[in-house]
Amino acid sequence: MNAPDKFVSLLTLTREPFPASCKGAIVGSRPDLRVPVRDVSLTNGEVISLYDTSGPYTDPMAEIDVRRGLPDVRSAWIAERSDTESYEGRLRAVLDDGVKNGERMSSAEDARIASLRAQAAALQRTPRRAKSGANVTQMHYARRGIVTPEMEYVALRENGRREWMAEYQADATREARLRGNPMGASIPKIITPEFVRDEVARGRAIIPANINHPEVEPMAIGRNFKVKINANIGNSAVTSSIEEEVDKLVWAIRWGADNVMDLSTGKNIHTTRDWIVRNSPVPIGTVPIYQALEKVGGVAEDLTWALYRDTLIEQAEQGVDYFTIHAGLRLPFIHLTANRMTGIVSRGGSIMAKWCIAHHQESFLYTHFEEICEIMKAYDVSFSLGDGLRPGCASDANDEAQFAELRTLGELTQIAWKHDVQTMIEGPGHVPMHLIQANMDEQLKHCHEAPFYTLGPLTIDIAPGYDHIASAIGAAMIGWAGTAMLCYVTPKEHLGLPDRDDVKQGIIAYKIAAHAADIAKGHPGARSRDDALSKARFEFRWQDQFNLGLDPDTARAFHDETLPKDASKVAHFCSMCGPKFCSMKITQEVREYAAAGMSAKSDEFKAGGGEMYIPIQPAAPQSP
Amino acid sequence: MNAPDKFVSLLTLTREPFPASCKGAIVGSRPDLRVPVRDVSLTNGEVISLYDTSGPYTDPMAEIDVRRGLPDVRSAWIAERSDTESYEGRLRAVLDDGVKNGERMSSAEDARIASLRAQAAALQRTPRRAKSGANVTQMHYARRGIVTPEMEYVALRENGRREWMAEYQADATREARLRGNPMGASIPKIITPEFVRDEVARGRAIIPANINHPEVEPMAIGRNFKVKINANIGNSAVTSSIEEEVDKLVWAIRWGADNVMDLSTGKNIHTTRDWIVRNSPVPIGTVPIYQALEKVGGVAEDLTWALYRDTLIEQAEQGVDYFTIHAGLRLPFIHLTANRMTGIVSRGGSIMAKWCIAHHQESFLYTHFEEICEIMKAYDVSFSLGDGLRPGCASDANDEAQFAELRTLGELTQIAWKHDVQTMIEGPGHVPMHLIQANMDEQLKHCHEAPFYTLGPLTIDIAPGYDHIASAIGAAMIGWAGTAMLCYVTPKEHLGLPDRDDVKQGIIAYKIAAHAADIAKGHPGARSRDDALSKARFEFRWQDQFNLGLDPDTARAFHDETLPKDASKVAHFCSMCGPKFCSMKITQEVREYAAAGMSAKSDEFKAGGGEMYIPIQPAAPQSP
Repeated sequence: MNAPDKFVSLLTLTREPFPASCKGAIVGSRPDLRVPVRDVSLTNGEVISLYDTSGPYTDPMAEIDVRRGLPDVRSAWIAERSDTESYEGRLRAVLDDGVKNGERMSSAEDARIASLRAQAAALQRTPRRAKSGANVTQMHYARRGIVTPEMEYVALRENGRREWMAEYQADATREARLRGNPMGASIPKIITPEFVRDEVARGRAIIPANINHPEVEPMAIGRNFKVKINANIGNSAVTSSIEEEVDKLVWAIRWGADNVMDLSTGKNIHTTRDWIVRNSPVPIGTVPIYQALEKVGGVAEDLTWALYRDTLIEQAEQGVDYFTIHAGLRLPFIHLTANRMTGIVSRGGSIMAKWCIAHHQESFLYTHFEEICEIMKAYDVSFSLGDGLRPGCASDANDEAQFAELRTLGELTQIAWKHDVQTMIEGPGHVPMHLIQANMDEQLKHCHEAPFYTLGPLTIDIAPGYDHIASAIGAAMIGWAGTAMLCYVTPKEHLGLPDRDDVKQGIIAYKIAAHAADIAKGHPGARSRDDALSKARFEFRWQDQFNLGLDPDTARAFHDETLPKDASKVAHFCSMCGPKFCSMKITQEVREYAAAGMSAKSDEFKAGGGEMYIPIQPAAPQSP
Repeated sequence: MNAPDKFVSLLTLTREPFPASCKGAIVGSRPDLRVPVRDVSLTNGEVISLYDTSGPYTDPMAEIDVRRGLPDVRSAWIAERSDTESYEGRLRAVLDDGVKNGERMSSAEDARIASLRAQAAALQRTPRRAKSGANVTQMHYARRGIVTPEMEYVALRENGRREWMAEYQADATREARLRGNPMGASIPKIITPEFVRDEVARGRAIIPANINHPEVEPMAIGRNFKVKINANIGNSAVTSSIEEEVDKLVWAIRWGADNVMDLSTGKNIHTTRDWIVRNSPVPIGTVPIYQALEKVGGVAEDLTWALYRDTLIEQAEQGVDYFTIHAGLRLPFIHLTANRMTGIVSRGGSIMAKWCIAHHQESFLYTHFEEICEIMKAYDVSFSLGDGLRPGCASDANDEAQFAELRTLGELTQIAWKHDVQTMIEGPGHVPMHLIQANMDEQLKHCHEAPFYTLGPLTIDIAPGYDHIASAIGAAMIGWAGTAMLCYVTPKEHLGLPDRDDVKQGIIAYKIAAHAADIAKGHPGARSRDDALSKARFEFRWQDQFNLGLDPDTARAFHDETLPKDASKVAHFCSMCGPKFCSMKITQEVREYAAAGMSAKSDEFKAGGGEMYIPIQPAAPQSP
């Protein structure tokens, strides 16, 4: 099939609702505040309601046309605040797409791209910005005591529906045994809008929501909220197309990406981003230096503050919700990497290092940081302060280069907060298990509880092709320790550009890590979904077991491989052991047996002076 | 193709040597003590030598015929000890294969199985046992101060070749920064045969090596040795064939399984096991109660000590190296599971629970434990004391049922040690991250440092289809904490019987977990392979990067997907960023730049009174 047909067919597949699921909404204090949930109907009549990142795509009632973009969620809220204005926006340049004047592609490719660009231009909204002197960040409102609709949205979203969880309330003994260890986090039982406001005000959480991205369904990144995950997409100079990237976005949020970063490089960066932002219900992040470098033909030394600044405004107008800015990579830190096993592995970091050395000057991102804050607060773009000196292998972990930069990110956080600009901090990377906790400790110490956003970390280096697993281990551990968002790693890490299936594999691995962290922290309600699935498993409700999993399709397909008949979906045994050997089946028989006979037998035995039934001993000590 | 052809072709694939690798041997104090290693030749002339579990299969010089079994490694060592005798062995019964007298299958199937049985009978060695009054366990020798060839073999194997690691020796500063946290383990820099003897003598390590499995290449399971992994194979009543299981064995050890458990149920258990043991260079474990249950037609109540005992001898004669025996599941503990979310999920555990309740009697495994020890020491079969009450979901983790059984396993360990029988302890299962450490603490406290052997644990319950990942997280953490062997979980867990690819996926996930644990513990030399791969990555030696990974085939295939040309294997860029955007390439340029200019610039700057170059600060605090 040709490319557009392929695109449409991919998107159709991607839009299919999850099995036994329907899109629901929790309506807030105003009718236009509708927080999405996914309600899963079980075969026993229960309805389990889940956090949902998939946007309108999984709603069969929603009319989706990627050429028109998603419906608007927040425009009214933004308008009501009366602190923004629409304006013409900066003048477009062909260079925005990395094309030099006069440069030509093949005529067929030219025509295709021209058409996509024309459509993107039609997609693009008229940009808004803060009125002169205004500050439109969620942090600014929060610090003035204002609970925005975005904050209320986040509160409702974090709580979700709770009614169904009553079925899975544990008794006090079990609750004491299973109690989480929040590792210093302060997670309330119920998230109130006021709690969200307070967390945003003190910088412990951010709500990435550019005023030019009104399609976004607000979400929070912070240590006292559910652990979030980010998926990276983006074309590159070597491969991939715009259509594929939009499809990957929709695919990524279907499987649970809370945020998506567009890391496109090469040609058509601007156009690709228009398509992605207008079709994204989740916050979009970028690394603006990538586009800036394209504009100077890939020659890092030719970068200038003026050109970079213009790129920030270009992307802020498009609606990018957070920028990775490697402003902590300072000239004096660069020599600290000289003896590293793998030097500087961050793309943005290596570009800036090259610039600094070529000019023998301090980084313009550092020297112009307050000017950057001025741009951020005019659009409510959040900082994701980049770790340009993150380790690229286990042996470079936790070295002075890394931690010198981290301390600088802490200083910059204070400056950003002076401007009420929302800020999170990026972290590594490659870190063996025993060095992970120190990363969190240092971050908390120097960055004042600004949300930590780590890539992995990968716990070993010898698993190319499986780095999603090598890093999910580290991600789960650092998520438990307090990291607010985990940037996924796909099986293609270090090897190639992830395709659709790689994106899914990376996301599922990271949903596992994030959920494991939520449970370890004792996030209220986090365990209920596990309990519902375990109960379904124990009661041989196979369909429910599949449908409550992170990936119902794969679970069902795996079961079908061994026992394809529909009848086996209600069978009281599974393919591992066969009909007469199932431990769960035997356990159920044991239970009935025990319920009937245990009490009488016990009395009889006790009367005989026996001590067959030992009393339940005090619970064994738990890890702290 | 028909079944035998398929088998031969699978095995051919499985036997292909790893890329750029050749089988080497470290020769010990006697010429017949040859410890296998895999030597990987890099494109830069280095040779990296790796631990190798694949047996003769990956040696192109080895003549392999699964109908004849593997060459003998240990017969001379066993014979020299003069404490065993060969004997006729117990009388075979058709019931050994789960076939009742007079029962018939289809005639085609009958013929096929009859042929496999005849071949198996030819395969089987004449059994040996301890001479009257003798004890032939490695622990017994160790406690008498004897260093056996098996112990020397293990020492050489754990050390491997070390010469190549000199290239990756870290300086003192880096070493201090990266120093592992052994969490109480006592790992020497070099493993001596005497150290192995001492670890085995005190019960802190076992060398599973039945005298009737002379094909085994000895290995150790213990907290002060490399963390090992176990792969489960086995046909079931529902699916799978003998040929497939032998192929899975060879496939599993190719990818790094240190031990394999044959969990077959249903028909042909005895014949399948003959094939597996005779073709296995790694220790084989079983759960004898599975076969015993088949012999009584699946009716747990009909089990008897006599029948079970006979089954132990049957399997000991075949050469099984360790038995999972759920002797800690006592009658008084059963009611502790009544309020569990998922009751008893261990197959062996549920069978014994049913038996105990049906008879209202203490488990015959518990009451006859000393008699079992007598059998174990006559063949040197090791105990793997089973956790029949392990939790089947996160909410059942660390409950009194589980820990009451664990304490009993500790008591039984003391009894086993009284008989000098090698013993390890099985552990869970399903445990959220924050409850993992307590499992290790309790095990160490009650089981006197006998090696811990855990299944996962799975950290969450909502990942059917991905439980290898959900459990690799827990496995890495508990491995770091001190678990000696990790039982793998495949993607098919809870859903179906793993096929060849699932086995590989499970093994790779667990090699990652085990290696992450070795690195966190600071196992000497563990990091060197990572360093070699990272250096290859940094230097764009793509082939070396693939070949040093856990799965060269997949790494190479992933790279080929994006950049299939051979030229790109030597290209100084990768598919993620393209030629002008590669951070590693830029870093190399930065380094040259820095090396040339930094010193001069620095002097110039300092002369000017600047403080651009900060001194390296003291290392930041590490996690304990």
